[in-house]
Amino acid sequence: MGELEKVSGPGDLRGLSPKRMRALAAEIRTFLVEEVSRTGGHLGPNLGVVELTMAVHRVFSSPKDSIVFDTGHQSYVHKILTGRTDFTGLRSRGGLSGYPSRAESDHDVVENSHASTAISWADGIARANQVLGRTDRHAVAVIGDGALTGGLAWEALNSVAGSDDRRLVVVVNDNGWSYSPTVGGLARYLDAMRTDRNYERVLNWGKNTLRSGGLPGRMTYDALHGLKEGLKDVLRPQGLFEGLGIKYVGPIDGHDLDALESALRNAKGFGGPVILHAITEKGHGYTPAEHDAVDHFHAVKVIHPETGLPVAAAGADWTSVFADEIVGIARARSDVVAITAAMPVPVGLGGMQKEFADRVFDVGIAEEHALTSAAGMAFAGLHPVVCLYATFLNRAFDQLLMDVGLHRAGVTIALDRAGLTGDDGASHNGMWDMAMARIVPGLRLAAPRDEATMREALREAVAVRDAPTVVRYPKGAVGDPIPAIGRDGVVDVLARTAGDGDARVLVVGIGPFAATAVEVGTRLGRQGIGSTVVDPRWALPVPEQILDAAARHDLVVTIEDGVVQGGVGAAIRDALADREVAVDVRTHGIPTRFLGHASRSQLIADLGLRAKDVARDTAAAVAARMDRRAAVDQIP
Amino acid sequence: MGELEKVSGPGDLRGLSPKRMRALAAEIRTFLVEEVSRTGGHLGPNLGVVELTMAVHRVFSSPKDSIVFDTGHQSYVHKILTGRTDFTGLRSRGGLSGYPSRAESDHDVVENSHASTAISWADGIARANQVLGRTDRHAVAVIGDGALTGGLAWEALNSVAGSDDRRLVVVVNDNGWSYSPTVGGLARYLDAMRTDRNYERVLNWGKNTLRSGGLPGRMTYDALHGLKEGLKDVLRPQGLFEGLGIKYVGPIDGHDLDALESALRNAKGFGGPVILHAITEKGHGYTPAEHDAVDHFHAVKVIHPETGLPVAAAGADWTSVFADEIVGIARARSDVVAITAAMPVPVGLGGMQKEFADRVFDVGIAEEHALTSAAGMAFAGLHPVVCLYATFLNRAFDQLLMDVGLHRAGVTIALDRAGLTGDDGASHNGMWDMAMARIVPGLRLAAPRDEATMREALREAVAVRDAPTVVRYPKGAVGDPIPAIGRDGVVDVLARTAGDGDARVLVVGIGPFAATAVEVGTRLGRQGIGSTVVDPRWALPVPEQILDAAARHDLVVTIEDGVVQGGVGAAIRDALADREVAVDVRTHGIPTRFLGHASRSQLIADLGLRAKDVARDTAAAVAARMDRRAAVDQIP
Repeated sequence: MGELEKVSGPGDLRGLSPKRMRALAAEIRTFLVEEVSRTGGHLGPNLGVVELTMAVHRVFSSPKDSIVFDTGHQSYVHKILTGRTDFTGLRSRGGLSGYPSRAESDHDVVENSHASTAISWADGIARANQVLGRTDRHAVAVIGDGALTGGLAWEALNSVAGSDDRRLVVVVNDNGWSYSPTVGGLARYLDAMRTDRNYERVLNWGKNTLRSGGLPGRMTYDALHGLKEGLKDVLRPQGLFEGLGIKYVGPIDGHDLDALESALRNAKGFGGPVILHAITEKGHGYTPAEHDAVDHFHAVKVIHPETGLPVAAAGADWTSVFADEIVGIARARSDVVAITAAMPVPVGLGGMQKEFADRVFDVGIAEEHALTSAAGMAFAGLHPVVCLYATFLNRAFDQLLMDVGLHRAGVTIALDRAGLTGDDGASHNGMWDMAMARIVPGLRLAAPRDEATMREALREAVAVRDAPTVVRYPKGAVGDPIPAIGRDGVVDVLARTAGDGDARVLVVGIGPFAATAVEVGTRLGRQGIGSTVVDPRWALPVPEQILDAAARHDLVVTIEDGVVQGGVGAAIRDALADREVAVDVRTHGIPTRFLGHASRSQLIADLGLRAKDVARDTAAAVAARMDRRAAVDQIP
Repeated sequence: MGELEKVSGPGDLRGLSPKRMRALAAEIRTFLVEEVSRTGGHLGPNLGVVELTMAVHRVFSSPKDSIVFDTGHQSYVHKILTGRTDFTGLRSRGGLSGYPSRAESDHDVVENSHASTAISWADGIARANQVLGRTDRHAVAVIGDGALTGGLAWEALNSVAGSDDRRLVVVVNDNGWSYSPTVGGLARYLDAMRTDRNYERVLNWGKNTLRSGGLPGRMTYDALHGLKEGLKDVLRPQGLFEGLGIKYVGPIDGHDLDALESALRNAKGFGGPVILHAITEKGHGYTPAEHDAVDHFHAVKVIHPETGLPVAAAGADWTSVFADEIVGIARARSDVVAITAAMPVPVGLGGMQKEFADRVFDVGIAEEHALTSAAGMAFAGLHPVVCLYATFLNRAFDQLLMDVGLHRAGVTIALDRAGLTGDDGASHNGMWDMAMARIVPGLRLAAPRDEATMREALREAVAVRDAPTVVRYPKGAVGDPIPAIGRDGVVDVLARTAGDGDARVLVVGIGPFAATAVEVGTRLGRQGIGSTVVDPRWALPVPEQILDAAARHDLVVTIEDGVVQGGVGAAIRDALADREVAVDVRTHGIPTRFLGHASRSQLIADLGLRAKDVARDTAAAVAARMDRRAAVDQIP
């Protein structure tokens, strides 16, 4: 019987010998590779924190002590150690979440998968423990070096540093990577701390030299202390954290269980905030991951556990179309630059980076800076394309509004993973972008429906010089082309059916839901209901042509991949009300609630967003309308 | 003739002798006190940057070089030096903006008055200059120490530090203050740099001691360098910025023109990013401001220039009501704590801070950390009340959504200055909060209409333990009490008129617009139109009782102090559509555009939000409806 089977909770770790701890670590690693290669998920980050998570759980007593994992995809080992070893349904409906989940366990604190939040959470918990007099409780934040580049982490560190006695340990899991290698001054700084090997030797030399000078009393102490700090600063410039006034311990080998445990015990006993700096290796112990130069198997689809190669080849996806088109645009326009928040390859900037290295800027996990610096670039004559996952635009609303929007900056924002993404759970669905974009004055938003309209929207977007534009597209494969049968202004007409009766329905499909809209039209036609199916292409602000068309129909039906309250359909309804056009608008989209993890198609079915659902609802509405009209007609 | 009259642009500074520069500084200071005491505005911050701004304009060539002022209320001196000396209409319609304004001058770059953006803007401009090969241009960010606590400033510094050759100078205007004294580790750090006077002496001693030890070659250099850095770190811990890899110069006396100019010239010539640390005194040269311990005359209403005392006493305002009620709540509930982002007094936490110092947390200009740490506090058993100006909630949307909302944290967010604020211009209007709150699942929002409902809403909010609540209220004086004639669920019925005809209008007034709604009802009554006037009190999500009431009326009219697209009125319209209740909703609110500076009442008139405007529009709609009905009745 292996060690892993004997662990049902963190308490089971405490009696284990060093040897058995090492055996357990090896078993966990094997378990992770086997399980995650079957289901897909975050592999590299979790392989890197096996020992770290084990040590944290030995030293601290969860859930009395609160352990907060930043960007929770590094919490698989924590799940295993807290009794969750059935990974068969990982990230599928009914299976384990890919992130911490309070519904799964009392050991989970933060479900949000967005980066840079953990220190703030832990600081809040530590402050509460202080106010409530719970001096025996600790809060622990485990945060990657990449996440430290996010502004929220700085705000939290600054705030933590103002305290002398909050019981708070920040474990920096430093693997030198975000999705891509961590960038900026912080990365250089941490790198300097990691790489220097001469520090102790030089320090000892310095101490001896000064001692032989025979300086008296306090002066000696200061000079020695000064020299020590000084050499550290030259060779391992750790002044950053200590400058802020936070006790710093490290760097520690993050795969050395004994060293970790000893450092954590010291940090726990310190009585005030401590930063513990652990050096780990993303993908540690798994050869294909260690040798991968791109992202150390950060997140994997289903792979072969031995080789690490994908089991099924992926089809052309939206990201690839973007990746291809942006290179073409960059070739044609020397003023076009691209900005990524630590994810150049995931957002499709790999190609542009290769060809135009000096025109792709990785700013770190720093969406706010991405947007505001883009406004600066636009001011000075460039056209920046800011490439984000849609859910991360939420992190820069003020910058979108007040820096880009207020200054009418010609900035294109390319939002990948817009709408339902599904298996990553609530905080990865990119469902808020359209409702948010709608309240930014002057902003225009395009939601392309297929490859051709995607390329067209991007070209149109970079041509706009005096306003922000957003181009948003979903995760996954691009569907078949959906040709237009006509174009009215910016609006594409996709289908028309005559129908038997008087009632005519305008079906408006946003982005990939244009395909659904076409099918809705077909289904309505089969029931003798006439319709026009349109794709506004530029969904926000609502094109005049949509309003004109609506006035010529008896019912408007909208389908979109975002929150329906305050979304594009609602915007059409509001604009019609402003024009005093009396036509009902039935909006279909995502309700304003947080969605559990499931596949995109499962969620679409659940939310009644399949063509058959929408067609059924529409036909019923038409019938009700006919009944009402018949009733009115019968009034003598 | 004084010096000030001879300056019509920054070029005029360049030939001035030191003596004439000092005379000019004195004249500018006198000008500021006289003018701003007449109009109101930001006095202390501008008195502090007289010499700094003069030196920047002598060394750099605006507008070729871009000078970006963070939190633009410190740009008055810049305005004067760039030819804008007519301050008579400062912050009034037609007069100068209280912030930089591109419409006013080519020398103005950033109009946004939100803190912590300047380094990002300057970094974007510097990157653009690099890409476009404009090696002779510089970007200069002038940023206060308080604004450095904001996360965006960190993201920008990290990004700047990744560059060796961007021509970028960050001038830290360190006066030790935000609105209140700057807090956290950064403040301690800067304070340590400011206060030590023994540095040079000890450094010289150390150098001499080491030299006498006779160490050879490179070793000597390293040791000397190490010792120097080390002593600096002990006595003036400047490792923070240098740790990041940014060249640091300072501290410089920010009122010494020669020292400033010399440091700025060095920074300009360095060829890469430089941080120049200038120590200034908020309110410098104006005795009442220097001696004021609260905020050094940060922002003033109209005051007497000699004494600095207000000319007119202010009436009871919303902030005072909050200030009083929160103390009562804190007395009754030991689990209630308050969080401010560097503005304890402006948001009304002065009283609570006095009585419960350990339960009021100032986190710095760090709205994101305010929200996320509040989620942590709620998790650990407290009920935090996060107190912000409404416009600053925009800076923490992701944290509101993903930390507070997703985790159903019992957090109250008190939004002061909600809705139109007016004279501070576009970026201070708190008009986005309701549209934003609407898309946060589970969030409830109250907009009290008078003192009694304000107190009631706060007490109700802190009683909610499993969801976030927002209580939002405007800037300025609380109006007269508006008694309810009945209550239906959470909804207050304020007035009912019978009217002559069939048509009955439901008038929904949000927050202070409840008073307007009552007057609309009265005006409609005079025209024989029946109405019910209601205040939902808890405006979001839309109370069921509002929908029930709407179904009993022929027309719904809503008036709110926020963006009308996607706002509360639109939410009522959407909810009625979902219920298939066929009643028109006419929404009145703020259009989705940026508003120029003017008084709140001017803006209300412009936007047609006075009672007479709304009543006229409503009566016309009722008449049109009657006409339509008459036409239908005439159908044979």
